[in-house]
Amino acid sequence: MMELTILGCHSATPRENKHTSSQLLEVSGNLFLIDCGEGTQMQLRKAKVKFARIQHIFISHLHGDHFYGLIGLISTFRLLGRTAPLNIYGPKGIKEIISLQLKLAKSWTDYPLHFHELLSTKCEVIFEDQSVTVSTLPLDHRVYTNGFKFTTKVNTRKVNPNAVANLELEHFHYAQLQKGLDLTLSNGDRYENKALTLASDPPKSYAYCSDTAYHEALVPHIEGVDLLYHEATFLEKHQDLAAKTKHSTALQAAKIAQAAAVKKLVLGHYSNRYRDKQEFIAEASIVFKEVFLSEDLKTFSI
Amino acid sequence: MMELTILGCHSATPRENKHTSSQLLEVSGNLFLIDCGEGTQMQLRKAKVKFARIQHIFISHLHGDHFYGLIGLISTFRLLGRTAPLNIYGPKGIKEIISLQLKLAKSWTDYPLHFHELLSTKCEVIFEDQSVTVSTLPLDHRVYTNGFKFTTKVNTRKVNPNAVANLELEHFHYAQLQKGLDLTLSNGDRYENKALTLASDPPKSYAYCSDTAYHEALVPHIEGVDLLYHEATFLEKHQDLAAKTKHSTALQAAKIAQAAAVKKLVLGHYSNRYRDKQEFIAEASIVFKEVFLSEDLKTFSI
Repeated sequence: MMELTILGCHSATPRENKHTSSQLLEVSGNLFLIDCGEGTQMQLRKAKVKFARIQHIFISHLHGDHFYGLIGLISTFRLLGRTAPLNIYGPKGIKEIISLQLKLAKSWTDYPLHFHELLSTKCEVIFEDQSVTVSTLPLDHRVYTNGFKFTTKVNTRKVNPNAVANLELEHFHYAQLQKGLDLTLSNGDRYENKALTLASDPPKSYAYCSDTAYHEALVPHIEGVDLLYHEATFLEKHQDLAAKTKHSTALQAAKIAQAAAVKKLVLGHYSNRYRDKQEFIAEASIVFKEVFLSEDLKTFSI
Repeated sequence: MMELTILGCHSATPRENKHTSSQLLEVSGNLFLIDCGEGTQMQLRKAKVKFARIQHIFISHLHGDHFYGLIGLISTFRLLGRTAPLNIYGPKGIKEIISLQLKLAKSWTDYPLHFHELLSTKCEVIFEDQSVTVSTLPLDHRVYTNGFKFTTKVNTRKVNPNAVANLELEHFHYAQLQKGLDLTLSNGDRYENKALTLASDPPKSYAYCSDTAYHEALVPHIEGVDLLYHEATFLEKHQDLAAKTKHSTALQAAKIAQAAAVKKLVLGHYSNRYRDKQEFIAEASIVFKEVFLSEDLKTFSI
């Protein structure tokens, strides 16, 4: 189970009630922050998020509308008394920027701050724990940019509560069953795994792709994801601007979604020139029906 | 005539409806931005300010709550198509921070961006034009910090509209009268200056002092100013914290205002620990009566 909260979904410059890119993804109780435009910490407060729960921040690229809020959030973590480590994944250079700002302010962090600087232009796994794997999705933008794919891990089998209701199981018995192993209890009773378990739910996956030009090389890496966030800065009537600035149109985002056979598509990173966001839906749904608009503070369940 | 708009007046971290330090000072139609905490550009939009009118930005020190919004504002100026030069006055290091962020984003400004880096620990004039002089006010904080004093220039004499109502004056005649000169018109008529003019209004002055410990050395430099903004991060019950962090209490701010015989005192830079701001007024007014609270988006006429 994943839950995605859009903190900001507008491009370029933040305005009153229009925040720049930032998203919060909850996976099995862990919070991952993706991009961090100016004012993200205020949006986190509006979304009633406990700051200490964020342990990993992923920055797609070093354009301001995706990371100018990071230094402020890092400072606020300190002022709030944080002690838990914070991991930051982003393009090479991000450590230098943050470190310089802390140095000139004669400031510091009381918690361990780990930078994981990215250089590769290939998909790579950059984080993994018991419940999720995070991989980069190299994008095609004016500067070095990665999208990120989050894929949940699932146990091989799921314990069937009815089947084990009358057994006295220890915690490690559950782990054995989840791994697909047969069980021998202390009294010598033996059980085949399939007698006590059910097939697991399939893994869930979320792909974040902002900012990028139309980029077909992306398709195999996001094949079949449950939710794809793909930037749609422009509409087709401005496809020349999209090409020039290495952004996508709503139609192009939909073509990528269709080619990758994703389950749902969410659009965002809108240019401020458009008033009626329904035009994005109208344009994208020509080729891909399951399309939705991101809005600041809107939540999507995956 | 000056008008001061508080964009943010809270310390440390921005919250929903609590913005960090930034002020806009209008002097004879020119706009000066003083400090620029995260989200200042959103506050400028709320205050309906035309961004292009800001040509000078003064940064007191390099703590985040006073300048994390600067890089975003610089970027937004470019996206809005600015061509007019922008002047930034602030501690040494500010150019390196901004330049590094622009470089790593492969970004730039299409307008001239001039940095005036400050090093001196003495009062010095850092800007002057026809209508105003801006001087630094060295403060006592954990890092190198300046306050700023804005003093209007006034003409020697003010043209008396009733006295010149029946004369056909050119633009340069007005300038001569304002300088205190007698007038000879093209028809040979001569007028003594005092027959056509009145005494000018006295100059107006505004002093911005944030952040600082109680600092008596400041007093002679702000003597008699029309409005003093002095930080009051704490109340006296937390004077130990104020001393430790080199901030002031409301009472200390009032003592400075009293010693300098300023006309009005405005408090701000409140710690987030206080709910009832009236306590600041109660404490300060023990020694200085003309004391007011700053509030986000509140305006003071000087």
